[in-house]
Amino acid sequence: MSESLMQQPLGAILDALASRAPTPGGGSVAALTGAMAAGLVSMVCELTIGKPQFAEVENELRAIHAQAEQLRAELQRLADEDIAVFNRLAAAYKLPRTTEADAATRKTAIQQITRLAAEVPLRTAQAAAALLPLCTTLANNCARLVVSDVGVAALLVRATVQSAALNVEINLAALEDQIFVRETRAQLQDLLIGLGDEVDGIVTIVRGRMVG
Amino acid sequence: MSESLMQQPLGAILDALASRAPTPGGGSVAALTGAMAAGLVSMVCELTIGKPQFAEVENELRAIHAQAEQLRAELQRLADEDIAVFNRLAAAYKLPRTTEADAATRKTAIQQITRLAAEVPLRTAQAAAALLPLCTTLANNCARLVVSDVGVAALLVRATVQSAALNVEINLAALEDQIFVRETRAQLQDLLIGLGDEVDGIVTIVRGRMVG
Repeated sequence: MSESLMQQPLGAILDALASRAPTPGGGSVAALTGAMAAGLVSMVCELTIGKPQFAEVENELRAIHAQAEQLRAELQRLADEDIAVFNRLAAAYKLPRTTEADAATRKTAIQQITRLAAEVPLRTAQAAAALLPLCTTLANNCARLVVSDVGVAALLVRATVQSAALNVEINLAALEDQIFVRETRAQLQDLLIGLGDEVDGIVTIVRGRMVG
Repeated sequence: MSESLMQQPLGAILDALASRAPTPGGGSVAALTGAMAAGLVSMVCELTIGKPQFAEVENELRAIHAQAEQLRAELQRLADEDIAVFNRLAAAYKLPRTTEADAATRKTAIQQITRLAAEVPLRTAQAAAALLPLCTTLANNCARLVVSDVGVAALLVRATVQSAALNVEINLAALEDQIFVRETRAQLQDLLIGLGDEVDGIVTIVRGRMVG
């Protein structure tokens, strides 16, 4: 698949995912899960803005909507980028290694592209995590008809960050640059710490408003 | 959107999700998240079957693959069904209620279709949860290159079951048939109990194999 996932029919994407074809894989799936979370946040904003009882927070809702759309665009791009980096990595592994010079060139290429392969899911995790503060505000300030969608968005964010983290880690395991490995792992930990509590907090607010 | 989501370009689906358009919403998103989890399970089977070191479990892997493809087909159908039920519910709410007889007909229709609107995400949660035992087996019996994808699948299953549960609950809140409400809630609890531990267990196995 060389064109953007966004141009392809969903059924064909899911068939390709399920197949032996190397792409799309878990990295793209994580980014798409995050993109769906962002889409839900935008939808909730769209269906809340303009309602008289939320007039006081309308400017805040517009800002949340703009941020969610920016993050959705970023996550959609990252789903494609994960495929592009995977293809580059597969090509690097196929480089010749008959001479010592060739082997060294190949190894450098693999290390450089594996680093990219760790950075793409790290950015996915960061973009998805940036949705959570938006969900927290929205959970208390949205039309009750769509409050469950805020909960779904938060649950998808958790899955995205944790899934992306696995994709970062599996690439870090193949890297020699231990400074980069440590720094990336630290950034990942920052995203993962408190994630569960933040999501649980949003879902608790959502459940409270569903029964109330 | 009247045709199946599967025929539509992914970008158009995400744009519609993010828009004021009432569908797709959180229910379809939950089903699609489950479908992606099933797709990852199938992919891992495809890339493991045939490898000599997994020859002993090949029959089991083939059975897992068949089940995952069945669950993926079911989850893809449920993503579309959620939209169809939503449209029927919206139509029921628009029924006339000028006479008492009309109002009674409308109320019955709304109750019947709200029940369906709870059953679709319940079936989504059930189909997604059925992937977890497959993930547990696969985590220990798959090519190491794709072990992170098993972890991603498990994380997506958790998000699907919990998201679908919110969609069940928001519909149960509008139902008068308390026997159905109690029975559905009990089925949901069965799916939710132990879910977190099962997913954490799979992710622990996955992480162990990633570093090992």
